[in-house]
Amino acid sequence: MSFQYDERLDGPLPTHDKAALVAELGALLPDLQLLHATEDLRPFECDGLSAYRTTPMMVALPGRVEQVQALLKFATARNVPVVARGAGTGLSGGAMPLEKGILLVMARFNRILDIDPEAGTARVQPGVRNLAISQAAAPHGLYYAPDPSSQIACSIGGNVAENAGGVHCLKYGLTVHNILKVEILTIDGERLTLGSEALDSPGFDLLALFTGSEGMLGIVVEVTVKLLTRPQSAKVLLASFDDIGKAGDAVAQIIGAGVIPGGLEMMDNLSIRAAEDFIKAGYPVDAEAILLCELDGAESDVREDCDRVGALLRTAGATDIRIAQDEAERQRFWAGRKNAFPAVGRISPDYYCMDGTIPRRELARVLKGIAELSAEYGLRVANVFHAGDGNMHPLILFDANAPGELDRAEALGARILELCVAVGGSITGEHGVGREKINQMCAQFNSDEITLFHALKAAFDPARLLNPGKNIPTLHRCAEFGSMHVHHGALPFPELERF
Amino acid sequence: MSFQYDERLDGPLPTHDKAALVAELGALLPDLQLLHATEDLRPFECDGLSAYRTTPMMVALPGRVEQVQALLKFATARNVPVVARGAGTGLSGGAMPLEKGILLVMARFNRILDIDPEAGTARVQPGVRNLAISQAAAPHGLYYAPDPSSQIACSIGGNVAENAGGVHCLKYGLTVHNILKVEILTIDGERLTLGSEALDSPGFDLLALFTGSEGMLGIVVEVTVKLLTRPQSAKVLLASFDDIGKAGDAVAQIIGAGVIPGGLEMMDNLSIRAAEDFIKAGYPVDAEAILLCELDGAESDVREDCDRVGALLRTAGATDIRIAQDEAERQRFWAGRKNAFPAVGRISPDYYCMDGTIPRRELARVLKGIAELSAEYGLRVANVFHAGDGNMHPLILFDANAPGELDRAEALGARILELCVAVGGSITGEHGVGREKINQMCAQFNSDEITLFHALKAAFDPARLLNPGKNIPTLHRCAEFGSMHVHHGALPFPELERF
Repeated sequence: MSFQYDERLDGPLPTHDKAALVAELGALLPDLQLLHATEDLRPFECDGLSAYRTTPMMVALPGRVEQVQALLKFATARNVPVVARGAGTGLSGGAMPLEKGILLVMARFNRILDIDPEAGTARVQPGVRNLAISQAAAPHGLYYAPDPSSQIACSIGGNVAENAGGVHCLKYGLTVHNILKVEILTIDGERLTLGSEALDSPGFDLLALFTGSEGMLGIVVEVTVKLLTRPQSAKVLLASFDDIGKAGDAVAQIIGAGVIPGGLEMMDNLSIRAAEDFIKAGYPVDAEAILLCELDGAESDVREDCDRVGALLRTAGATDIRIAQDEAERQRFWAGRKNAFPAVGRISPDYYCMDGTIPRRELARVLKGIAELSAEYGLRVANVFHAGDGNMHPLILFDANAPGELDRAEALGARILELCVAVGGSITGEHGVGREKINQMCAQFNSDEITLFHALKAAFDPARLLNPGKNIPTLHRCAEFGSMHVHHGALPFPELERF
Repeated sequence: MSFQYDERLDGPLPTHDKAALVAELGALLPDLQLLHATEDLRPFECDGLSAYRTTPMMVALPGRVEQVQALLKFATARNVPVVARGAGTGLSGGAMPLEKGILLVMARFNRILDIDPEAGTARVQPGVRNLAISQAAAPHGLYYAPDPSSQIACSIGGNVAENAGGVHCLKYGLTVHNILKVEILTIDGERLTLGSEALDSPGFDLLALFTGSEGMLGIVVEVTVKLLTRPQSAKVLLASFDDIGKAGDAVAQIIGAGVIPGGLEMMDNLSIRAAEDFIKAGYPVDAEAILLCELDGAESDVREDCDRVGALLRTAGATDIRIAQDEAERQRFWAGRKNAFPAVGRISPDYYCMDGTIPRRELARVLKGIAELSAEYGLRVANVFHAGDGNMHPLILFDANAPGELDRAEALGARILELCVAVGGSITGEHGVGREKINQMCAQFNSDEITLFHALKAAFDPARLLNPGKNIPTLHRCAEFGSMHVHHGALPFPELERF
């Protein structure tokens, strides 16, 4: 099975006597919850990238920062790799365990420590669920803006690790734009404060460097997030199109007109039908594409924006435009989109979710390319987009039990990501690199850039004990992988010639 | 004179035969403009922190990227320090030259390479002036948001180096939030692309790490900035207060109500009088404090916000509220604020501008503390604030020709910054650390954090040739300086006990 740590390509990992380590760690931290029996380890074999499994050597579930600190010092002293895990909802295998490593589960750190409505901040432990922050802030009329589709379950520590986005990040930014400060432990158990509650922090921007670093630089033990005032009003328009290219043009028109929607999402016919079948959101199942455009802000402003956007959508060729008539319908429109992945899961035994980003102007060309690749590999692709910021989520439908289909799905996914890079985009918008896109990093970056990443990693974790084999490929891996692939689009990408 | 590079505290610098280096570099790059005669070097002795001067060994004014690349390779090979400089308007001595180093002036890279109105981006060379970008984008109804007071003169490369802000950064963010991609040269002349035109870039966030790194990690040779649609409407309210604490409360009320003003600035009586005398902005010279609150967006939205903010200001105790009646008056209101520094320069032989940030709730306490410190040191302090984001610019008035006043001004400045740190703030909001605040970094960060900064620096520039002695202090300097100062507010700060 692919997506496993490969010692040949990712570098050797230290090997240990598991029983001895368990005994030692148990003696050191008698009140640490530590799982090591095979049946106890099963639930931790995978994260959201669920077709792939690895059994961790052991699983630690600490409940106090001092335990994490002691565990990290132990791991450093004994040279044992450590993989941190929040809720395990990540989609790129960033929290996939290692057979030779400790899986450090931060789920028990689930307390909201403080909400300061005046400053507009919340101080929370890393295991707090994304949605729980907004729920706790709601009595003050505040909320936490980033809203990944997994927000009911995903934890803020994982959001920081992956720099999570969501359907509202076009207007409100990614995780990095919505946090002020994180407290971390380095691999040697040292506690550092990154960022501050002030506007800007002197020195190098460690907070931004850490956010999205996928557990490779340290372990989050506390996060101070920004809270926003809930907009006075929010309306959603649902526009239908008989051609997906026209929907793409409409996106360009809206952004070009200077409107910044709270969310601007596109779905193609296959996604529309899957979502409608599952959620009964009220989507037009015959449309080739729909756009969901949310406008939020002051009442009068939203009314005006709805009129402007409605006119733009009509000009762009929308065959039908509906405005959610009440909050229940607005929620239903979004529920269809937010459940598009599981909805596709109902019409196919397995699916593989991609996360490429492209410059918006390349949308039509990339969609055409995906359709051609889909035909070439004989696998259906459902397209769901954060259209406003060019973040695509093509879902490749396959059956892992059909011989060769998983391999074909992976190969098709890799081709789609390389297509994104070739048009000036990138291999991930919000899901991260993890294990899944480790090879495509060699297409995104050249060897000087990869070397610099390793040097930065070494500044935090010279023995590379934290989440090895994720996010940043070894140069050896790139050398094996690289010869056949583009670097910064410098080599010709055959698909592009044809489009 | 202080603020000079100090080999004892900052580490030794390599010493060279200047004539030999000039000859070698001249032979290597015959068409490079290279200044080395003392009279030619004079104009480059200081940046905006103008009380302090150092003569550089030589000044290079390249016009092509290949020349910069060759110069950096030469500097690496010969082990010569390099200080990059944009327009030299920085206020913390970040671009102050070294007697033993080359000053690399990027001013000739002043071309706007490309404006893409559809994508909302501009690709510019580093020497392009901040305001020139907005001027070039204006025909498309677009502009570049960050607007430091020096925006007529300062260059975008310097803005990136210092992560510049401005009066509108409460709503629109700092430089780091308004750029997509920079092309840099490392000290060994290697060209790297940081960031991308896509939403997010995989791997570690090198763009954010680089932004604000004060010329210590590489040389900017190209910047891709975001352009925003000019707001339909902008109104400014000018509110007078008979007590500066009430003005502070009004700020909390406005932010707490969920209004995000385009700008929210406060000035105290001394600043008001100085600015009015200079600019005739129409300010109330008897007020203890004024607030300038700009509201921008759609026409109807701005009208509504003006009503809300007006009501909040009245409740908070404003003695008078005026709305700029036309664009000319709006510009005049802002001109008073934007010229507050030179205005203070007219009422005092010299002034020293601080740049601390504090949590907004600490405003009253910190103002009281500054008043007490001002009395203790016998120097007047004029207060100008980006009130919305807690970024204070106390201006210490002194006379460099009066014996001991410069030293007293520096000592008072240091105490003010340490007060900011002690209440949970930071020593710089937007001006950077440079030479000026190098000692206060030891108050802001502990030795583990400083060590990490050095490790990150080493990942880019192991021989520490780029802008040595700025931004990040040596541990030796902190050891000399640190024993008497707070770390993370852990030690008691005597002033705070008294407030």
